Amino acid sequence: MSSSGTAPAYRRLSVHERRSQLLGHALGLFAHRPPEDVSLDDVAASAGVSRPLVYRYFPGGKQQLYEAALRSAADQLEQCFAEPPTGPLTNRLARALDRYLAFVDEHDAGFMALMQGGSVVETSRTNAIVDEVRRNAAEQILAHLTDPGGGGESSVSPRLRMAVRTWISAVEAASLIWLDEGKLPPLPQLRDWLVDHFVALLTATAAGDAETAAVTRRALALEESDGAVADLVRRVLPVVADSGHLM
Amino acid sequence: MSSSGTAPAYRRLSVHERRSQLLGHALGLFAHRPPEDVSLDDVAASAGVSRPLVYRYFPGGKQQLYEAALRSAADQLEQCFAEPPTGPLTNRLARALDRYLAFVDEHDAGFMALMQGGSVVETSRTNAIVDEVRRNAAEQILAHLTDPGGGGESSVSPRLRMAVRTWISAVEAASLIWLDEGKLPPLPQLRDWLVDHFVALLTATAAGDAETAAVTRRALALEESDGAVADLVRRVLPVVADSGHLM
Repeated sequence: MSSSGTAPAYRRLSVHERRSQLLGHALGLFAHRPPEDVSLDDVAASAGVSRPLVYRYFPGGKQQLYEAALRSAADQLEQCFAEPPTGPLTNRLARALDRYLAFVDEHDAGFMALMQGGSVVETSRTNAIVDEVRRNAAEQILAHLTDPGGGGESSVSPRLRMAVRTWISAVEAASLIWLDEGKLPPLPQLRDWLVDHFVALLTATAAGDAETAAVTRRALALEESDGAVADLVRRVLPVVADSGHLM
Repeated sequence: MSSSGTAPAYRRLSVHERRSQLLGHALGLFAHRPPEDVSLDDVAASAGVSRPLVYRYFPGGKQQLYEAALRSAADQLEQCFAEPPTGPLTNRLARALDRYLAFVDEHDAGFMALMQGGSVVETSRTNAIVDEVRRNAAEQILAHLTDPGGGGESSVSPRLRMAVRTWISAVEAASLIWLDEGKLPPLPQLRDWLVDHFVALLTATAAGDAETAAVTRRALALEESDGAVADLVRRVLPVVADSGHLM
């Protein structure tokens, strides 16, 4: 995006280059303002081109430009959850969350407007794009859980799928709260807490579902003695130390 | 609602009675169909009155009727989380969830249309009503956590508030997935899993936040040796039995 932003307007761009240049500028504007506050003139001014030129590439006007920008943002977001199938699962999850949360940080106002709903540009198409991102993130996480080494996959129980999908909604909700709270706590703390949340939810789900239990045991076996789960266990022990009556 | 639904149309109702009769019928219709599929004629037919009569009470037409029905549904939902400050917190939470999930079950299609966004009747006002329900549920849960005996309240750390708000979003997401999965698993299992999720998230949050740790210790002290937390601990132990390297 930054490279397209610096191309002078008078240079002759190919159709593809021009389209992605305009899209880059649109995404930059939609990232930091609610869609209500972005006009076609803003996009034209930001790209240093005329309004008719924007219309030539996006005859559907703002709505089309918004949906195309959202599509390109969704492609970026889907990349966030791609991770090689090696190492402890909490490390993979932490890296995916770092990318996701950096995206939220960079697209703060646009993310809020999109997720809070009721925006003028919201349609069944924009909702479908958001849902696709969620579904894709869930599938990626389930693939790592059921096949941590990238070999043969085990099956996904409905309860495990529900747990992962629920956690993804929790990550979205936490991201919105984080934006609402002036971006506090700092991102690494938010990321660690979301990883802890995942481990806790997976373990609680394993407590009531045999397939999730098998997946969890395999995941725990991959964790390291100085890793995120061991650290969580160490920090949980003093909290439950006085609860002998529940053991 | 059921009582208003049976009043014959020719009986002379007071303004207040007539308004709540119409609202009851509207809520009944909006509960089971997306708002797109409910017309003023449907409401009039369901209540056994004429369309002009509906307009006399709701001159803003379907949008006004929808918002009034949503307002009345929100009042019902806010009641779900009211619980006396006695007994183990997981019991209180289970009862609140039973009421909430029964509401979701009874208003299935309307709940889905409302929560999935992009509906024709969605406005900043309807979003504000939904947000108010979330906020109210969070405040009720925080009050039970920080003041489990109903006496003097301790303070709420930002992390504890974020955990509770995140869990409420997770409950919403799980409710939508539950509807999407043909109402499976059965409600008591879904409720127990959501309670387990809450206990797990609270404990994981306590692991990184002193105020949440204090709240969690007090909550655990109220739990019974044959209660939900003891049961969760019993079911978790076999899952983590082979993870000595993390302890």
